[in-house]
Amino acid sequence: MELEEKYLSRKEIFSGRIIHVVIDTVELPDGTESTREVAYHPDGVGILALTDRDEVLLVRQYRYPIERVIYEIPAGKMDPGETDTEAAAIRELREETGAVAGTFEPFGSCLVSPGFCDETLHLYRAADLRFGQQDLDEDEFLNVERIAFDKALAMVESGEINDAKTCIAILREALHRK
Amino acid sequence: MELEEKYLSRKEIFSGRIIHVVIDTVELPDGTESTREVAYHPDGVGILALTDRDEVLLVRQYRYPIERVIYEIPAGKMDPGETDTEAAAIRELREETGAVAGTFEPFGSCLVSPGFCDETLHLYRAADLRFGQQDLDEDEFLNVERIAFDKALAMVESGEINDAKTCIAILREALHRK
Repeated sequence: MELEEKYLSRKEIFSGRIIHVVIDTVELPDGTESTREVAYHPDGVGILALTDRDEVLLVRQYRYPIERVIYEIPAGKMDPGETDTEAAAIRELREETGAVAGTFEPFGSCLVSPGFCDETLHLYRAADLRFGQQDLDEDEFLNVERIAFDKALAMVESGEINDAKTCIAILREALHRK
Repeated sequence: MELEEKYLSRKEIFSGRIIHVVIDTVELPDGTESTREVAYHPDGVGILALTDRDEVLLVRQYRYPIERVIYEIPAGKMDPGETDTEAAAIRELREETGAVAGTFEPFGSCLVSPGFCDETLHLYRAADLRFGQQDLDEDEFLNVERIAFDKALAMVESGEINDAKTCIAILREALHRK
């Protein structure tokens, strides 16, 4: 089956600090028309950071859309125009946790919700950590916890950790250890 | 550190077929004010469906926001007012692939992008499949492929598969097999 959808026209809905929302009219593979609601969102980075005691650095952060505090790996959005995902990941790890890593390697990427959003998250794995000062954005409030890797994996399996990027990073690391 | 953010007021931006976009003004933990752009999106379901030959059912689908065809596990949105995630998952698997499963079990859930979106995906694992007729929505175009589980895992590790829910389902299954 032919799958591609062709852009026909755009209605601008909203251009905010974070998201840009449009309704595009598209031609479907069968020649009919439909609309697609899209939220364009900056790409981001997430970092699985492991201490010498085999703990994972996790941040506890209130997430307004779901109205609760959850566990996530350190993460952040790319700055406007920024293209170096590794530099962004090094920055976000340092800002959120104070950690600087001796070893820093790509750990895959993921599309968060490709039906309506273009956001890609670039994951990194950090080890050989040294700790300095946290340096949060002015509207950012979070607590950093060090959790034993095996416990973090159990939290993914029990559902206590269910942030997608965090699940992927921890499951991938666990699989590589087997 | 106190983490909770308090709702102060809302500006409605857009209420579409799929997403509902608002800008809320919130009180941050330090008493200052900020705004939160939120895209409310229906929750969804995703199904890791395994054939008797240890193949995974994957759908190839054009995702308009990223302008390309990607591999994903069968998935779909909850209908308005629908609360039974297992029933939704059984329906989406049948509609997208024609498959009906003899064994159907919860396989965790994930938050796709909790910084700006409330969407939760509920994952299920299906086996003992019988195949009938596909029954796609009118604006839905996709091809179903059966891919050997080990190959699908290799595609996650290489990045050829990078849809978040699909990565989580395949990584979790792989880990349970070790």
